[in-house]
Parts: sequence; C-alpha cells; structure tokens
Amino acid sequence: MPSAIVSQSGGPTGVINASVVGVIEEVGKHSEIDNLYGSIHAVEGIVKEDFVDLKKLSVNVLEGLAASPSAALGSSRDKPDAEYCEKILSIFKKRDIRYFFYIGGNDSANTCYIINNMADEAGYELRAFHIPKTVDNDLLVTDHCPGYGTAAKFVACALMGDDLDNRALPGIKIDVIMGRHAGFLTAASVLAKQRRDDGPHLVYVPERPVSMDKFCSDVEGVYKKLGRCLVAVSEGICDTDGVVWAQKTKAQEEKDAHGNIQLSGSGSLADFLSAQAKAKVGIKRVRADTFGYLQRSFAGLQSPVDASEARNCGRQAVAYAITGKSGSVAIKRISSGKDYAVELFRTELANVAEKTKSMPDEFINADDNGITEAFVEYAMPLVGPLPKTHYLGNYPRV
Amino acid sequence: MPSAIVSQSGGPTGVINASVVGVIEEVGKHSEIDNLYGSIHAVEGIVKEDFVDLKKLSVNVLEGLAASPSAALGSSRDKPDAEYCEKILSIFKKRDIRYFFYIGGNDSANTCYIINNMADEAGYELRAFHIPKTVDNDLLVTDHCPGYGTAAKFVACALMGDDLDNRALPGIKIDVIMGRHAGFLTAASVLAKQRRDDGPHLVYVPERPVSMDKFCSDVEGVYKKLGRCLVAVSEGICDTDGVVWAQKTKAQEEKDAHGNIQLSGSGSLADFLSAQAKAKVGIKRVRADTFGYLQRSFAGLQSPVDASEARNCGRQAVAYAITGKSGSVAIKRISSGKDYAVELFRTELANVAEKTKSMPDEFINADDNGITEAFVEYAMPLVGPLPKTHYLGNYPRV
Repeated sequence: MPSAIVSQSGGPTGVINASVVGVIEEVGKHSEIDNLYGSIHAVEGIVKEDFVDLKKLSVNVLEGLAASPSAALGSSRDKPDAEYCEKILSIFKKRDIRYFFYIGGNDSANTCYIINNMADEAGYELRAFHIPKTVDNDLLVTDHCPGYGTAAKFVACALMGDDLDNRALPGIKIDVIMGRHAGFLTAASVLAKQRRDDGPHLVYVPERPVSMDKFCSDVEGVYKKLGRCLVAVSEGICDTDGVVWAQKTKAQEEKDAHGNIQLSGSGSLADFLSAQAKAKVGIKRVRADTFGYLQRSFAGLQSPVDASEARNCGRQAVAYAITGKSGSVAIKRISSGKDYAVELFRTELANVAEKTKSMPDEFINADDNGITEAFVEYAMPLVGPLPKTHYLGNYPRV
Repeated sequence: MPSAIVSQSGGPTGVINASVVGVIEEVGKHSEIDNLYGSIHAVEGIVKEDFVDLKKLSVNVLEGLAASPSAALGSSRDKPDAEYCEKILSIFKKRDIRYFFYIGGNDSANTCYIINNMADEAGYELRAFHIPKTVDNDLLVTDHCPGYGTAAKFVACALMGDDLDNRALPGIKIDVIMGRHAGFLTAASVLAKQRRDDGPHLVYVPERPVSMDKFCSDVEGVYKKLGRCLVAVSEGICDTDGVVWAQKTKAQEEKDAHGNIQLSGSGSLADFLSAQAKAKVGIKRVRADTFGYLQRSFAGLQSPVDASEARNCGRQAVAYAITGKSGSVAIKRISSGKDYAVELFRTELANVAEKTKSMPDEFINADDNGITEAFVEYAMPLVGPLPKTHYLGNYPRV
C-alpha cells in the first residue's frame, strides 16, 4: 500500500503545526494510504529516514499540536540540489511513499517542484504538494499565507502596548520587525492604531528605499509635533543605493545557504538606527527593540482565522493529491471586511516556486513612510479580534 | 470636601491600570471624597496641575482600562527632591487633596514617604499610600509585586515558543530579559519548561556574577550534549569584578536620573554575548534576542491572578487610607500551590522606600546558571495557566 509523508521547512510559524494536523486528519479518512510519516528536520530527516508515525496521535494531541507554535517535526534551512533530491526520491521509492506534503515558503515549493519533475521523468507515481507557510506573506498566487496572520497579530499587540508605553514615557522608539524583501509584517504594526494620534507614526518597508537623512528628518518632524515618535522598521530596509541598512552597519556578516546576510537574531540594525536618531535629531530618550524570533514562535497567540486556514490548507492538499494531482494550495478571498471569507484552490508548483511577492503600491503611502487604509482592510480579517486599549492622557483636564 | 489623587510612576506594567481602577472603584464607595484626580505623567502632572477627573468613567471604560497595558495616566522618571515635594504638597493644599495614591516601585514609595512626612510636619492632614508595582518583583515586605506575574507570563510564553523554535532550527539562542539587580523576571523563563530537555538550559541572573569564560564553557557544555542551547540572561548580569556586562560592551553610556546606565531598549548586550559564544565556542548558528519593552507592555496578555491582585491592592489602599492610615499595601501568601491564596496587609512606607529585594539563594542552583524548583513553586501561581506545547521530534522512530 502507498504511504504519505509530511515535512515542515524554513522558519517556523505559529500555525505550521495546524497544517500538519490538517494533513493528518485528511489522510486519516483515506484507508488507501498506509503509513503517514513525519520527517524530522524536513529534507534532512527524509534522507536519513528519520521518521515518526503520525497516524497514532490521539485527538487530544492533535488539538494541542494544532495550537502549538513552531515546527513540531523540526525544520531545516537545507536547499536541496539535484543530487539531494535524487536521494529523497530514492527514499520515497524504498518506502513506497507516493504522497509528499511539504509545508514551507517559495524554496520549499521549488524543492517540491524539482522532486515532482524527477519522479515524472523516472516514471515514479508521486503526488507532491506544497502547503504555503510564511510569516513574510510573500508567496505568489495566494491572497495571503498561513502563518502571516498570527505573526501580524503578535506585531499588532506588541505595537499597541509599545505605543502606550511610549505615551507613558515619551521619546523616540524604534521597533525592528521581520521582513527581508516584503513589508507585510512590518505593515501589520498599523493594525495597532486605535486613536488618531496612536503610533506607529512612521513605517518603513523594504519596498521603499530610505536615506538616513530622510529617516531622521521624518522622525524629527513627528517628534516636534507630538513630543514622541514610534517607528516600525522592516529588518530589510535599504538605502537609496539599494544596499540594506543592516549590511551597512557592518555588524552582520553571516550569510545563509541562500547567500543572504543574517538579519534576525541581532539588535544591531535597531541600535544603529537608534544612534542615528539620537545624534542627528538631538533627542536623548531614544530606545530600540528588535522583535526577533518572538514574532514567529510566541506560545498561545494564534490568530483563529490563520489557524483555521492553515489547517484547511493541510486538509485540502491531501484532498487534491488523492485525486491524482500535484501542486500548491492557494487561498482566494471571496468576500472582504466583516463578511471575510475564502476558498482554497490548486495552483501549479511552478507558479509558486522560487518567486516572491512584495507589498502592492496601494498599501504604501505617497511619502514612503506609512501604510494605507487599503492595507488595513486587507490585513485586519487575517489577524482576528484585537484587544481594545485605553489611554486617559487625552481626556479633558479638570 | 477633601479630594483624592492617584498617579502612576516608573516603568509601565501590564496591570498598573488595574490598580488605578481599584482605586477608582473604592473611592466611588466613599461619598466623603469629593474629586478623584488622576495626574498625567505622575509627579510632573501634579506640579503642573495636569489632572483628569476619574469619577466620570463608565463601568465599560473601567473594565477596558483594567485590561489595558501600560500606564494610562502616563508616567515619569522624575525623582522629586525636597523642593519638588514641597511644590507637590502646595498643590495638594490648594486643591484640598487629602488622599494621595501613588502606584510605583521603591522610588515611588520613597516619594510617598517624603511627602507624607512633610505633610505631618506642616500639620496638613494627608493619607499617602504607596501601591506596589514592578515587573522586577524587587520590593521588600510584599511576597511579590503586581506587574510581575504578567511580565513573567510574557517571558514564559516567549521562551516556550523560542525553545520550540530552537528545536526546529538548532543552534545557540540567547534571550536577554529585563532585570537590573533582581533576577525574578529572567528566572520566569524556566516556567516555560514542559519536557525534560526543554530550554532554557542555562539561566543567568544579576545575583550571581559570571565570567565570560564560564558563560562560554557552560554554553559549550550544553551544546555538546543536546546539539542546541537556549540561554536566558538578565540585562543586569555582571562580571566577577561586579561590573555589569552591558557596561563592558561600552555601547551603553546613557545614564538615567538615578545614575544607572541604560540597559533596556538596546540589543548590544545580546549581540555581545552572541559574538562571544560564536567566537569562543566555535558554533556558527548563534542568535540573540532582547525582549525589551514588549515584556512589560504587551497588549492582551495579562495574568488573571496578577490583574486581580493589582486591582485589589488599589482598592485596599483606599480602604486603609479612609481609616486614617498612610503606608504601602503588601501581599502575604497564605496558601501555596493549587490552593494559592493571598491576603493584603499594610506596611509602613519606610519599610518599602528606596530598598530592593534580590532573589533568595534557594531560587538559584549551585552552579549559578539555573533556577530551582522552589522558584517554580513560588512563581507559577502568579502567572496562571500557560499554553501546553507539543513537539514530535522525541516520538519513537519508524
């Protein structure tokens, strides 16, 4: 009897386990699938045959798993070349694995695509399905990515509290948020705004280069007007020459398997921006925080919509694969605002593999330092209900 | 008719507004109190008579306010001298303010103490009450401080997710947590542990000096054993010569009104420790996050016990003041574990003013790099229910 395998790849998210649970649930409905393997550490686990049996998990464990952050099967940053993919295929053949479910970003979609093609050429019947996942929300075709809504909720709740903190003890506060090429997660900072003068007052995304002069002059302008300034900055913001600022701080020299410099897991960009603002604007109380890994793996803070969609994407991938198809699951928004609703559809692996999406122009303001209402309409349904906050400092005086 | 005033001072917390609401509720029961002023930005607002009327808030606003993070009245880092306190007292006299409720740490207790003594000497009838608040949990007399449980919950949820993240993509991860002199908040990282080999695997608190050699050798030891290492470090950890490591990184030279160097709002200590571990242990994947202001002002993440106790401390301060007493509210634990229960009592302002508490020895392990079960028993009831997480990488292989 044919078996199936599911793996989790790339950076963890708050709902990537919900997608695994979706796969487990749907596979459980199909007695024609013998084993359901979970590979430990993604492709690394496949080539080592480091597998757990996912058919034996109780309903209680499944519900707990679906709510649990990070990748419960472990992940990997390996980017398999042709030889690596051949090795994966040989393991699939050895174990009679005919269904491959790979939860990840555009690189994972590409790995799926390569292995699917190899299987085709070898005449080995395989259904390879990519299940989308990324906090960056940068995949093509799909309206948005599972994992984004939960990370965006973290960012919104963080900025909400941080804005009140900045009101309580005014000064300049800079928050550095994940996002190498796409500003979606940093843009989510504006979901925190409840009052007219709430921060973030300035938002910088990788899609819009910014000079240090403009950055400091923007900050100074807000500070002069409000007596404080809260800034949200993508880790991937770049100078007008296209070089990312994080690289110009020279503190970051480590590169990953994809040749990218390390952006997360360091406070150097935040500290650099903080020093610039302090020196050029001449304001003493300047603070900077880097949200780091908390924004993708915080426990107990899922967006319910995101968790549900991630689970459905896992289920749907299995349902498509059973009908003999390979591909990637994508989300189509069929209704917006309060009536927000989606449907899932299948797209070809080639449409998602290796490519990334940036923020559309209509989400970024004309001054390149803020986010529009169009973005709020896009993102708010993905995040779900947010806490309401109170501030008494703008009440009438007695 | 006499009036009352309430102010919030020092670093905000997740429940300092709950204490304000407690004050408002209890004052509302006493028709002998005319106005209830809220001063904007603490003592700064008092001397400027920058007041809002807190008697007019609806029940809905009060409930929302009690759940809202940060200081809704604004805060201040001012440390009033004698002249400043005389000015405060003159405003009290002018407005016939006879009740002063000051929510803050040991410095705020001291301000209360000074003003109370001045009023006594001037023969002005004043009830000055300090209501405890700090995420550091470092006040004397009280079993624990309102604000600590909520910040500890944030730290626990963060470490829970971060440990799973570190399992998914193994390496060395260093988390820098607030705490200048007391390690209580950093110690809360161990509340995240659910499995035997869960992190944090090493915890360093300001109470125990640590050399860089020991730090790196500890990290290397864990890494060799587990293939990964999650470390929780207080921002205030110091070298064996007693100098804080953050100061030795030389990146931090700003000092506050109390002569302390700035520790929060910068990633430099985390980056320094990360570079040390990378160089001395020779491991490439080393990441560091500094939790920064998120841990004290995150929206929507209160500990229910903490919020309830903070509110009760506000109520009780008013109840004591009405009987003609000044002082500070303190918490006594009358039952532990699952039957956790407390009662509130009054202590003299002099007992709390200016002094701080450190972690007791029995909360720190013999190797000075971990936290004991005695601490877990102490802290767990203050944090309330935590999410349960799942990890499949230690399931049997097939």
